[in-house]
Parts: sequence; structure tokens; C-alpha cells
Amino acid sequence: MDERQGARRPGGRGARVAAAVHQAVTDLIGERGYGTFSVGDVAARAGVADSSIYRRWGNLENLLSDVALTRLNARSPMPDTGSLVGDLRAFAANVAREITGPDGLALLRLAVALSSNGPQGLRARDDLLAERARQLRSMLDRARERGEDAPDALDVLDHVLAPMYIRVLFGVEPLTPDYVDGLVDRLL
Amino acid sequence: MDERQGARRPGGRGARVAAAVHQAVTDLIGERGYGTFSVGDVAARAGVADSSIYRRWGNLENLLSDVALTRLNARSPMPDTGSLVGDLRAFAANVAREITGPDGLALLRLAVALSSNGPQGLRARDDLLAERARQLRSMLDRARERGEDAPDALDVLDHVLAPMYIRVLFGVEPLTPDYVDGLVDRLL
Repeated sequence: MDERQGARRPGGRGARVAAAVHQAVTDLIGERGYGTFSVGDVAARAGVADSSIYRRWGNLENLLSDVALTRLNARSPMPDTGSLVGDLRAFAANVAREITGPDGLALLRLAVALSSNGPQGLRARDDLLAERARQLRSMLDRARERGEDAPDALDVLDHVLAPMYIRVLFGVEPLTPDYVDGLVDRLL
Repeated sequence: MDERQGARRPGGRGARVAAAVHQAVTDLIGERGYGTFSVGDVAARAGVADSSIYRRWGNLENLLSDVALTRLNARSPMPDTGSLVGDLRAFAANVAREITGPDGLALLRLAVALSSNGPQGLRARDDLLAERARQLRSMLDRARERGEDAPDALDVLDHVLAPMYIRVLFGVEPLTPDYVDGLVDRLL
């Protein structure tokens, strides 16, 4: 998001601070919801100084965006099973597992909340969506290169991701494996 | 939500207070996002005493739920066109119009935010969803009574409502009439 992130060291104290701060943000969102805590609250929870957070992330928005992107990317590697149906089913199952965990719901709420937070929030949300869309398009492109007839990324958003997101956000019924596979099969 | 609502008078000062308070809530959610204001903020914005709000709604959660339900119900009467495709297209167009307005996005965010707000929030959200689901099921039942092959309400949620909600919440592309009709046609 900004050059401070480029200065992050891959291990050592910096990595421990980042991990503690990320976990503190996830916990606070899960417990209290978004919009109810400050950089000071995160720092206290993570056991670091406020200045460590400001130095590294600049402000709360950049921090929230970094947490969301990092968790999303770490948790959902894109599958490469050799077939489109296999890839999409594995992808959908990964997303279902991610968003039905307590951190996942916090992440979804964060994505929604970021969009109500002015230009900085919108940029953070766009980064989140652009990264997800890029991963998905590359999976669909691989299928086309194999000669398969692949849907657009927006069709996957509309008919596989959106139903799962809304069911989790609104607490409507669990995401069973049959249900998740059914969304993919219906799309294809 | 509770017996205070039963005591509401249909017109006069009570109705004016309710309208001012509802508008204040919608404005505050739209401007600042959910979770950033108190009963006192709503009262100040609406130009009424805090005690008027506590007397009528009891607490902020009940007020938010009342605002969401009232706006949703007032804005989306269920269509009755004589055919399932006509009803669903009109319904989807109504929802699209509602959620792409500034108040509609606030309403969607409210529904999401309510679910992160403990038992009271969950009850408010469930009321909101149950009312919407009831309206939808009655439209689908009418189609079945005419001998049409109607989808389940959950299928409509998954493949018509969820894509529109997610596109608006995440700011992905506009909801054009062709797109909205296409969601219905694809479902049927």
C-alpha cells in the first residue's frame, strides 16, 4: 500500500510485531466489529507501542487492508488440479472453509466495512478485490489454454462466491460440501 | 420488535418524530458507517430528545432494526404481474433500484453490521431476513398455484439477490437492467 511495507524484514522482531498486530486486528474485528477500535487499541492488544504501528503502516486503514490481503492470500492458494471443474470445486471449498472460520467472517465484514470508509477504505477494498480477481482469472485462463470452456471471473463472483458470502454474512444455513459443489456444477 | 412499537400512533407528532429519527439514522449510516454513532447522535441529528428515542425504541439496536425493516418494506412491495418471470424480473428490478440508492447501500451495510452485534443484532437481522423471505415465498407460492415451476426462495437468494448485494457492497460494476434480467432468466 505504501513504501513502509517495502521496508518490512522477512523475520526477526519485525515479523513478530507484524504477526501480533495482525492477530490483534483480527481478534478485535471478530469480537467487537469494525469501526469500534483505534490504533491505540490494536497496539495495547498486540503488546506493542502505538508508534510501531504508525511507523510501519502509517494509519489504521493501511493496517486493516494489509491484514485482509495477507490473510486472504495466505489462506486461499489457487488450486491447480488439471481440470476446470476440479479447480473451481477446490477453490470454492477453500473459500467456504476460509469464510466459515471466525477469522473469515471478520475478513468479510472488513471488506464490507472498508467500502464505507472514504477514499482510503475504497482503495484498500479495491486492492483486496483486485488481488482475488487476478488469482481467479489466472485459474480460468489456464482452463482456456487447455481448451476448456471457462466462465468469466464475474460469473464466478456472481454464482459461486456471492451466494457463499451472503449466506455467511447473513447467517443463512451452513455451507455444506454438497451445496458448495452444487454452486460450481450449476455454473459450469 | 417490542411492545413500544405497538403504541406508535399513525400520525401527528409521533409520526413526525419517527420520520425524523429514521432519516437521521439513515443519514448517519450513509455518512459515517455503522457503529460510529450513539442514540445521542441520532437524537441531535433528528432534533429530538434522547428520552424520546429511549421511550419509543428502548435502545439503539431496536431502532436500527426498525429503520431497516420499515425502509425495506416500504420500498419493495412484491410485484404481482401474473407470471413468474414477470414477478421475478420486477422484484429484482425493485431490489436493484433500492440497493443502488444511497439509502439502500446504508441498509445493506446495516444488515451486515447487525449480524456482528451480538444476540440483539442477530435478532434484528433475522427479523429483516424473515420478512423478506416471507414476501418472496408468497410470490413463489402464487406461481406454483398457477401451475408454474418455481425455484425455492433460497435459490432466488443465491442467484438473484446475492450477486446484486455483493456487487453493490463491493462496488463491482453497475446493476444494469440487462444484467438484472439476466440473473432472473438464468435462474429460471
